[in-house]
Amino acid sequence: MRMEPIVERVAERTGLPLNARTVERVLRALLGHHDFWEIVDAADEVVPIVAETIRVLDEQGWLRVEPHGIFLRESARETLEQEWGLRPLPDFRCLACEGRGIDPLRLPSEGIETFMAIQAERPRAIIDYDQGYITPESTLARFAFAFMRGDIQGRRVLILGDDDLVSVAICLMGAPQEVVVVEIDRRLVEFLEYWANHMRWPLTVHQLDLSQPLPVSFLRAFDTFLTDPPESIAAFRAFVGRGLAALRGPGSAGYFGLTRREASLFKWHQVQRYLIEQGAVLTDVIQNFHAYVNWDYAPKTRAWRLAPVKSLPDKPWYRSSLYRVELLTEAVGEVDTVFDVHTFNDAEASTT
Amino acid sequence: MRMEPIVERVAERTGLPLNARTVERVLRALLGHHDFWEIVDAADEVVPIVAETIRVLDEQGWLRVEPHGIFLRESARETLEQEWGLRPLPDFRCLACEGRGIDPLRLPSEGIETFMAIQAERPRAIIDYDQGYITPESTLARFAFAFMRGDIQGRRVLILGDDDLVSVAICLMGAPQEVVVVEIDRRLVEFLEYWANHMRWPLTVHQLDLSQPLPVSFLRAFDTFLTDPPESIAAFRAFVGRGLAALRGPGSAGYFGLTRREASLFKWHQVQRYLIEQGAVLTDVIQNFHAYVNWDYAPKTRAWRLAPVKSLPDKPWYRSSLYRVELLTEAVGEVDTVFDVHTFNDAEASTT
Repeated sequence: MRMEPIVERVAERTGLPLNARTVERVLRALLGHHDFWEIVDAADEVVPIVAETIRVLDEQGWLRVEPHGIFLRESARETLEQEWGLRPLPDFRCLACEGRGIDPLRLPSEGIETFMAIQAERPRAIIDYDQGYITPESTLARFAFAFMRGDIQGRRVLILGDDDLVSVAICLMGAPQEVVVVEIDRRLVEFLEYWANHMRWPLTVHQLDLSQPLPVSFLRAFDTFLTDPPESIAAFRAFVGRGLAALRGPGSAGYFGLTRREASLFKWHQVQRYLIEQGAVLTDVIQNFHAYVNWDYAPKTRAWRLAPVKSLPDKPWYRSSLYRVELLTEAVGEVDTVFDVHTFNDAEASTT
Repeated sequence: MRMEPIVERVAERTGLPLNARTVERVLRALLGHHDFWEIVDAADEVVPIVAETIRVLDEQGWLRVEPHGIFLRESARETLEQEWGLRPLPDFRCLACEGRGIDPLRLPSEGIETFMAIQAERPRAIIDYDQGYITPESTLARFAFAFMRGDIQGRRVLILGDDDLVSVAICLMGAPQEVVVVEIDRRLVEFLEYWANHMRWPLTVHQLDLSQPLPVSFLRAFDTFLTDPPESIAAFRAFVGRGLAALRGPGSAGYFGLTRREASLFKWHQVQRYLIEQGAVLTDVIQNFHAYVNWDYAPKTRAWRLAPVKSLPDKPWYRSSLYRVELLTEAVGEVDTVFDVHTFNDAEASTT
């Protein structure tokens, strides 16, 4: 059983665009639901595609359409779960606001506790690498969101810079196929390697400066990337552009944070145009998704020098949005470009 | 006191792009906060712009910078509130999920109750106009979101099609300057006109078919538009494109819903490219923001004909995302184009 013939058959009969990820979303929905309307809802694909995919699967003997619902055959379920590694998607939508937000406290409590214990020992943020990490709750929320979107479990995941420790949350709770972190800071590399060995996680960590190209073996090799770049256009290309080049192709997904503290809406527009031109569609843009822990080096920053009143912030003020993009075509991204690190901060920046 | 000289001065000194809306966001933040970091957080503008705007306002005698914070002078506050009609922004972020979602139950309870009572008497959705309305909770959430973003209070608001009754929520709780609804369905026009007269709302309703151009007096006349179009590209241009043409210019905002039930990510990409090219930046894309009330005419739809199992949905399955865009330049949009209504449904559609 293979995915491509299903994709081709559905495309032929509906005349509509789709890719393997489309069919995968329908299959995942079928693992968790029997009612047609619930399947459409869970698949997040258009009705004619969902209906035709079910018809093709029926013809090939994968499922039974009965008066009271649609049921995967046991053999198909086994293939999907064991050979293809597909599981129904978990749900972490906030119960208080009808699912408009995401609530990381719906993650398994033992996972949350272990994550909190590990992150408590993390290296402190230092100014050398423009660090500044998000609250542990924000890291958990970012992980929960990507997990819920189907971008973690069974996936090859690349993390470009990980002072937020999202790799830890992924390895603890996300059942990834493999996680690769590239990180410039020796302290973080050692911290993550220690836990990877200690916990026998499928996690490898490479010390690497993202002004330089990624190893060639990383190109077109990952299903998902996550990153939180400095916010000049050059830094965006160095981090997100390299992330795009590392994605396998259609159906692969990327996540990044972008603030309005160091990036104006004018810069947002440039970033969005770049993504659209790379063949990526923006599936989610959620403002104020992450809050940052105030950093120790605040009085050394430009923000401090610009502040008309010199008092330290006493609660989180630096927040960023969460972007998710999904590729519809192979992205070019940034492969060979070497960037000058001095271009990683521009005139809108203030945290170094 | 005028906005433009402040914008020019800040632009000159920082060399950064900004517009009147940028300065307005800083002014609104100053109405509600005294701590510099809280002001940056509330303004959602980059630190150098916020700092320079405060410096210019200080030089012009609008505020006092003191060791314990930044304080608008009483005369400036009066001007802002009374002449300019600016108020601090309300906050409806969900308290359960750290503000990642929005919770309409934080709206004033008497407003919610009146809205629920009025909407209970609404005309039923009919297939003729591809109607299908969102749950009243979803309408309240959409309103709360736009209110919180500063796009309702004191604004001229255009609503293109209003079977969701968002105009009712706006007039009850949003203190708009004026609301204009264009709507094709005579029953809805009469319903809204009845309540506008009865409640003395600043609401006018025009019966209009959006395949036809808007009246010329609507062009470049509104601060905000809201719409929930059918989901072909032609319908998107007819509804959102006319909305863009009705906006005043930089800093004006548009809201619309887009599903994944009738619009694939391939169509999302086309829509996003159109918006970027129109000089609009996507500030928010929130999936599954709205849930729809199941419509009475379900068995007459293509979705029903496509469904492999003919059973009516027993809970909400049709959801849409909320998009917010903000103009950075004047948009061209759609001014004269007449659309064939038959192009309002495409091969991905299924609800008519």
